Amino acid sequence: MQRAQRRMGAADLDALLLTTEADIRYFSGFLTRFWESPSRPWFLILPAAGNPVAVIPAIGSALMARTWIRDIRSWPSPLPGDDGVSLLADTLTELLGPKARVGVPMGPETYLRMPLTDWEQLRARSGLTFTHGARIVADLRAIKSDAEISLIRAACAVADRAFGRVPEVARAGVPLNRVFRDFQRLCLEEGADFVPYLAGAAGPGGYEDVISPAGPEPLCRGDVLMLDTGLTRAGYFCDFDRNFSLGPAPAPVRSAHAALVAAVHEAAEAARPGQTAAGLHRILASHLASHGNPGGGRLGHGLGMQLTEGLSLIPDDHTILQPGMVITLEPSIELAPGRLMVHEENVVLRDGAAADFLSPPATATLPELEA
Amino acid sequence: MQRAQRRMGAADLDALLLTTEADIRYFSGFLTRFWESPSRPWFLILPAAGNPVAVIPAIGSALMARTWIRDIRSWPSPLPGDDGVSLLADTLTELLGPKARVGVPMGPETYLRMPLTDWEQLRARSGLTFTHGARIVADLRAIKSDAEISLIRAACAVADRAFGRVPEVARAGVPLNRVFRDFQRLCLEEGADFVPYLAGAAGPGGYEDVISPAGPEPLCRGDVLMLDTGLTRAGYFCDFDRNFSLGPAPAPVRSAHAALVAAVHEAAEAARPGQTAAGLHRILASHLASHGNPGGGRLGHGLGMQLTEGLSLIPDDHTILQPGMVITLEPSIELAPGRLMVHEENVVLRDGAAADFLSPPATATLPELEA
Repeated sequence: MQRAQRRMGAADLDALLLTTEADIRYFSGFLTRFWESPSRPWFLILPAAGNPVAVIPAIGSALMARTWIRDIRSWPSPLPGDDGVSLLADTLTELLGPKARVGVPMGPETYLRMPLTDWEQLRARSGLTFTHGARIVADLRAIKSDAEISLIRAACAVADRAFGRVPEVARAGVPLNRVFRDFQRLCLEEGADFVPYLAGAAGPGGYEDVISPAGPEPLCRGDVLMLDTGLTRAGYFCDFDRNFSLGPAPAPVRSAHAALVAAVHEAAEAARPGQTAAGLHRILASHLASHGNPGGGRLGHGLGMQLTEGLSLIPDDHTILQPGMVITLEPSIELAPGRLMVHEENVVLRDGAAADFLSPPATATLPELEA
Repeated sequence: MQRAQRRMGAADLDALLLTTEADIRYFSGFLTRFWESPSRPWFLILPAAGNPVAVIPAIGSALMARTWIRDIRSWPSPLPGDDGVSLLADTLTELLGPKARVGVPMGPETYLRMPLTDWEQLRARSGLTFTHGARIVADLRAIKSDAEISLIRAACAVADRAFGRVPEVARAGVPLNRVFRDFQRLCLEEGADFVPYLAGAAGPGGYEDVISPAGPEPLCRGDVLMLDTGLTRAGYFCDFDRNFSLGPAPAPVRSAHAALVAAVHEAAEAARPGQTAAGLHRILASHLASHGNPGGGRLGHGLGMQLTEGLSLIPDDHTILQPGMVITLEPSIELAPGRLMVHEENVVLRDGAAADFLSPPATATLPELEA
C-alpha cells in the first residue's frame, strides 16, 4: 500500500481505481470464489494518501469487514440503472475532490471489470480524469513477498504430491476425461482449495495442443500423456506440468524429455536478476533447437494470484528480472508436426544466485505408466 | 447466428465484436479452461451478413479449427505493443468497410476483455464506430435451446448425486475446508468436468454469509451446513444448494427449511411466461415474510454458460419471463441476525405450464448428519 502510494505520487495520480479480483485481493485480502458470478461490479479505491475504500455490493460487506479494510460502502447490487455507479462517483469526488486524476490499470493483461455503459456514466457523473494506472499494480504484484512465495510453494507441493499419484488413475484404456476428473480429485485430496485450471493431452509420441478439453478417447500404449495444473491454495496458484509414457517410450521421446528437463535447469541457473525475459527465452530456445522445433510460443511467464501474470518469456519482452519474481519455465519441443512435448516448472528469482525451484523439479527420466 | 444477424439488421449494426469466454463460446462452441490465463485477448466478429471470423492467439488456432468457424486469423500472442489490435482493426475494416457500425456488449454483466489502451488503439486505427451491442447477445443467451437445457439438467444431476453423498464427508468434528475439498471430489466422481464454484457455510441455527471461503473450523452439533455448487459439465453450470443439520435440528430451523422448500415450489408454479422477474421476487418474498426476515438480496437469477447470467429476481428487474429461460429460485430467511438459511433450485420455464425442475427438488425435511 505504501509502495503504491509512493508510486502514485510520482505518477501524479490522486488514487487508483481497481475492479478485478486479483487486483482487489492484492490490496485487501478479500478472497472468495464469488467472482465467478459476473452479475455485480466491485471497486476498491486506493487514495494517494489515506486508507483504501471499498465500494462493493452489500452481499460482500460482511466478508470485506473481516479484512483490514475499514471504510466499506455498499449498495444493494444488482441494481438496474445504477449498479454502484453513483455511489462510486460520489465516493471518489468526496475523497479526492472534483479535479482528481484517477489511475486505472489499462496495460497488458488488464481489463475493466464493469460494463462500458457504466464506465461512461462514471466518467460523466464524477467529472474526474481517469487515466493510465502507470503499471503501478502490475509492477508491485510482479515482486512476491516471502509470504506469497511460501503460498505458491505450498500450492506446488500439493500438485507435486498429486502428480506422484498419477499411476493410480492413468493407464492404457482409461478415457482422458476420466483422467482429468480423477487427477483433480487427487489434487483436492492432497490439499488444493480449488482446481481452476487443468489442461492436458495425450498422443502417440507427443500431443497436438495444450489447451483442448479432454475427450472420451482412451489412453493407448505408446501415448505421451501430459497433465498441467493450475490449482490454488489460499488464493495462490501453481502452474506446472508432468509428462508420462504409456508403456516404454521410444528413444526420441525419452531424449526430448531429458532435453526439456535439462533446458529448465539451464534456464533456472541463468534466471538471475539483471537478465531479461527475452534473454531467458533465447537461452531456452537455443538449448532446444538441437532437439526439434522449439516452436514460436512463449516459454514461460509470471505466476501468482493468477495462473499467468506479468512477464512473458518471448523475444519481445525486455522486462528485467528482479529478486522475488516467480516465473514458470515452460520449454516445448515439436518432435514432428502435431507431436508436441511441453515441460514446465515454477521458480523464484533470488538475489545473486540461481533461481530456486518452487515445484520439486522432475527427473530427466520420463515416468512410465501401465500399458 | 441467424437470429443475431436479424437483430443486427434491426439495430443498424454491421457486426458484433465479442471478447469474453461465454459470448465467444455461445456462437463458436470454443470450449477451453485456457481463459483462466489473462495474458491473451480473444476476438470473435459476427458480421450482419456472412460467417463469423475468429481473430485469436495462435495457441488457440488448432482448437478453434475443430469448431464450425472456418475463417480463423491469428497472431503470436502475447505480443507487446500490438497484441492483436492491428490484426483485429484490419480484419474489421476488410470485412465491413471503413464506415461500419460495430456493436459491442456494454450492458449489465458485460465487460470488455481487452486492455483499455488496446481498445483506444483499436478505435483510432480502425476509424470505425463502436456502439452498444443492443443487448442482442444477452437476449439470445437468455433463451436456452433444448440442447442447452439438457446440458444444464445433466450438470444438475451430477450435483444431486454429490449432495446425496454428503453424509460420507460431513459430520461433527470435520473442518469446513475439508468438507469443501471432499465435496468437490464427490462432484468430480459423479461426473463434473470442473467445479469452478463452491460456496457454503455452517453455524448454529443458520450461517452468517454465503460467499466466504471455508476455514479450518470443525462442524459442530447444532450447526446448519449449507453447500452451494456451480459445477460444470460440457461448459454448462448448475447452481443450487442443499442444507443439512448436524444432529437433530431445532424446530425453528426445521420450519424455516420447510418454508424455503414450499416457497420454491410456489415460485416454480408461478414461474410462467408473462410473469416478470420482479413479480416472481414478490411471490417469494411475501411467502417468506411470515417465517422471518426474507432479506434484501436477490432471490434468484438466470443460469447457463455462466454461474449467474441474465435476469435477477429483484424488485427492479421487470424482465418478462419467456419459455426456455433457465433460472434459479433462491429464497433466504434470516432467522436471527447473522443466522441465515438459503435454499436454491434450478428450473426451466415452459410455455403455458409451471416451471420444470432441473435440479431434483429437495424434500421439506432437513437432512440430518452425524453429530
